[in-house]
Amino acid sequence: MIDPRTSIIDERLRNIKRTIAVTSGKGGVGKSLLASTLALILTEKGYRVGLFDLDFTSPSTHMILGIKEVQPKEEKGIVPPVIDGMEYMSIVYYTREHAAPLRGADVSNALIELLSVTRWGELDFLVLDMPPGIGDATLDLIRLVKRIEFLVVTTPSRLAFETVRKLVRLLKDLQLPVIGVAENMKTKEADTIQREVNNLEVPFLNIIPFDRNIESALGHKDRLLRSAFAESVRGLVSNIGS
Amino acid sequence: MIDPRTSIIDERLRNIKRTIAVTSGKGGVGKSLLASTLALILTEKGYRVGLFDLDFTSPSTHMILGIKEVQPKEEKGIVPPVIDGMEYMSIVYYTREHAAPLRGADVSNALIELLSVTRWGELDFLVLDMPPGIGDATLDLIRLVKRIEFLVVTTPSRLAFETVRKLVRLLKDLQLPVIGVAENMKTKEADTIQREVNNLEVPFLNIIPFDRNIESALGHKDRLLRSAFAESVRGLVSNIGS
Repeated sequence: MIDPRTSIIDERLRNIKRTIAVTSGKGGVGKSLLASTLALILTEKGYRVGLFDLDFTSPSTHMILGIKEVQPKEEKGIVPPVIDGMEYMSIVYYTREHAAPLRGADVSNALIELLSVTRWGELDFLVLDMPPGIGDATLDLIRLVKRIEFLVVTTPSRLAFETVRKLVRLLKDLQLPVIGVAENMKTKEADTIQREVNNLEVPFLNIIPFDRNIESALGHKDRLLRSAFAESVRGLVSNIGS
Repeated sequence: MIDPRTSIIDERLRNIKRTIAVTSGKGGVGKSLLASTLALILTEKGYRVGLFDLDFTSPSTHMILGIKEVQPKEEKGIVPPVIDGMEYMSIVYYTREHAAPLRGADVSNALIELLSVTRWGELDFLVLDMPPGIGDATLDLIRLVKRIEFLVVTTPSRLAFETVRKLVRLLKDLQLPVIGVAENMKTKEADTIQREVNNLEVPFLNIIPFDRNIESALGHKDRLLRSAFAESVRGLVSNIGS
């Protein structure tokens, strides 16, 4: 059975020039921090930006950006609130109402529902903070969101990279565009990851050194934008063709 | 419909004294490394130990322990190979056969299948490396494995701890035993997490300082056991009543 909401999703995303899905093979590599900072920096550069937190496993962009109790407005669907100059929407608005954890089909349903009710404005960039790995939600998003480009985050750890390798191979098998792989939390000199990424035949975007002061910037947009982490992300932005 | 395999699971786990599920709110906090090292150290202390990698989102204990191509033996079910003195089983043996990623129901099915076919010996401890967070798989495991005790891993990051808070609350709501919370990758002095854990009314187990040399120990059991990380885990072992 074809869900009638899937054609509505196309319509909802019609006025968005580029959709960048920030994704990772496993959690804890800084994916949400990168997605949030990327959205802030694109906004800073004058683009019209939306940030959509779809990481139902641990939605955290609202904590990273210090967003408190802003509820989206209902008006023939849901209009995302404008926060820090960008349109912002999170699955946390939806899951918060559920005391019990969502099971697979409900997660799928929540994602489709959110995509089909959210009324984004005209945007240059919609940044998606994706669930980590290749689970149901990732597969649903690939199926539902057209013209999606993937920005993959890894760390120098082999454990993280092995999961990225699988993810990149899947994306390539599905002939989806991969903007490239960024290496986050770098502490030592080594070009292992860069060489591995080259072997996968996708662009190596850049290195983001481990920023031990980033924790104290969480929840504060201005401190985030002044952090060493953000400075590295500015370098990355020039590599994604913005 | 009741799956007939669920009563077989009870039977399969009958000869196991304690089942410790190492879990986390989000990925990337060192859960698999802690589960692997915990199993090694319990073995080193003379206990009969099994390690069961159920983290289908990114199975990695085989990489951490340097386990290459050991296939479990089929004999009225599956007999886990004995590796480094412990019985070892991983969902990777199962998922490797699947080119495509498993969808929700298949994951559930794979877990039930694995639990019902694996023939553990008499064990003092079965250590489970759980999927991160509160997804379907975690809920299934809670339902299927009786007398399970939870050891929760966090990092000092608020982003990690907020997900741990939800997980611990759920475990307490379900009246499941929580051994305690360990704080991994500590880089700065601060008792924030310890105080938060105390507020949740579960034991704070110990602090594991960030070990920047751990990456080079991955895949080498002996180096792992000599690492600063392992030394911290030895301290933790005395807190779990072994």
